[in-house]
Amino acid sequence: MGTVKLDISMSLDGYVAGPNASLDDPLGVGGMRLHEWVFPLKSFREHHGQEGGETNADDEIVAEGLRRNGAVVMGRRMFSGGEGPWAGDSNANGWWGEDPPFGMPVFVLTRHPRATAVMQGGTTFTFVTDGIDSALEQAKDAAGDKDVLIAGGADVAQQYLRAGLLDEIQLHVSPVFLGAGRRLFDGIPPDSAGLEAERVVASPGVTHLRFRIVH
Amino acid sequence: MGTVKLDISMSLDGYVAGPNASLDDPLGVGGMRLHEWVFPLKSFREHHGQEGGETNADDEIVAEGLRRNGAVVMGRRMFSGGEGPWAGDSNANGWWGEDPPFGMPVFVLTRHPRATAVMQGGTTFTFVTDGIDSALEQAKDAAGDKDVLIAGGADVAQQYLRAGLLDEIQLHVSPVFLGAGRRLFDGIPPDSAGLEAERVVASPGVTHLRFRIVH
Repeated sequence: MGTVKLDISMSLDGYVAGPNASLDDPLGVGGMRLHEWVFPLKSFREHHGQEGGETNADDEIVAEGLRRNGAVVMGRRMFSGGEGPWAGDSNANGWWGEDPPFGMPVFVLTRHPRATAVMQGGTTFTFVTDGIDSALEQAKDAAGDKDVLIAGGADVAQQYLRAGLLDEIQLHVSPVFLGAGRRLFDGIPPDSAGLEAERVVASPGVTHLRFRIVH
Repeated sequence: MGTVKLDISMSLDGYVAGPNASLDDPLGVGGMRLHEWVFPLKSFREHHGQEGGETNADDEIVAEGLRRNGAVVMGRRMFSGGEGPWAGDSNANGWWGEDPPFGMPVFVLTRHPRATAVMQGGTTFTFVTDGIDSALEQAKDAAGDKDVLIAGGADVAQQYLRAGLLDEIQLHVSPVFLGAGRRLFDGIPPDSAGLEAERVVASPGVTHLRFRIVH
């Protein structure tokens, strides 16, 4: 039985998306800066069918996640750009294209029913309309003894945190200020989770903080 | 010539004081939880004239600060509880009593002029009414080749950060949620500082993140 973990990139001022985030631009102004640390890494490039890349402490963190994760849960905004309940056919699989980088079952929280989409490379998108508990149960079944990754956005992360359903939180903190946008931790009740810092790893461009949630 | 550093305890959701913070209760509801990590430490106890205490990685961080710091800048709320521009004589030296824990010159930003107060144990409180640049210059002069500590609160930290006057930020992140209160980084312009993660040290109860500011 794996763990259920929130694993997400955040700015030093606590944002996971910048100002004016929308379905068309889910990361908002400057939000891509939170993810730039990951693109040059060997494990990330390999996962995307590219050669080369950096091997360092950041790379080990990413490789570890790729090894451990067996299923993903994400919100509808993280899945899909474009207008309407779903974008037109040309964009029906969101930002992720025909060969999404997950390579595992992905469960998308939404109010809009849709048939499961089987993509290239082992990714399936299953659309869950009956809430976070259902999505998590389905993801656990799919993951087997691997971990379930709660990938965001902020509202989805907050729902799982408030419901006490997370075992672990890993934050990748980029040393930048976004100034406004969507904060990861907003209105979290003070006693919603007991946390212990479990591991920190730092490079100049990103700090990885892992917390265990004490139930 | 030392560095100018912001050194402050923060919750995981980014608060340096909890809800309902006021001159009477500058840490707000739950805010004392951000500081509990420091009380059992040997270097903190020693600095307060007490024996014993824990020696660990947290203690080394605190000892390092005590060795390096030569002067402190703080806001008026951090200095003084009570009503009115200054509390009555019985509380005229704020929260800190007759033998404050600083043992060095402290510069208090305020709009209310007042004569310098010379306290026991080497602490002096100098009240600066002509702004953050003046307070910093006075603190640098007093510190000599030691560091100047910008101690808070959030508004003072933000003023120095926005003005580009900091060399270093050290955050002591407690793994708790305060849910509301005063956020350390609020409305910081995205390009106000280039930061590099310089050192992280973690124990189960607190994570110390040090960033260098690239001017």
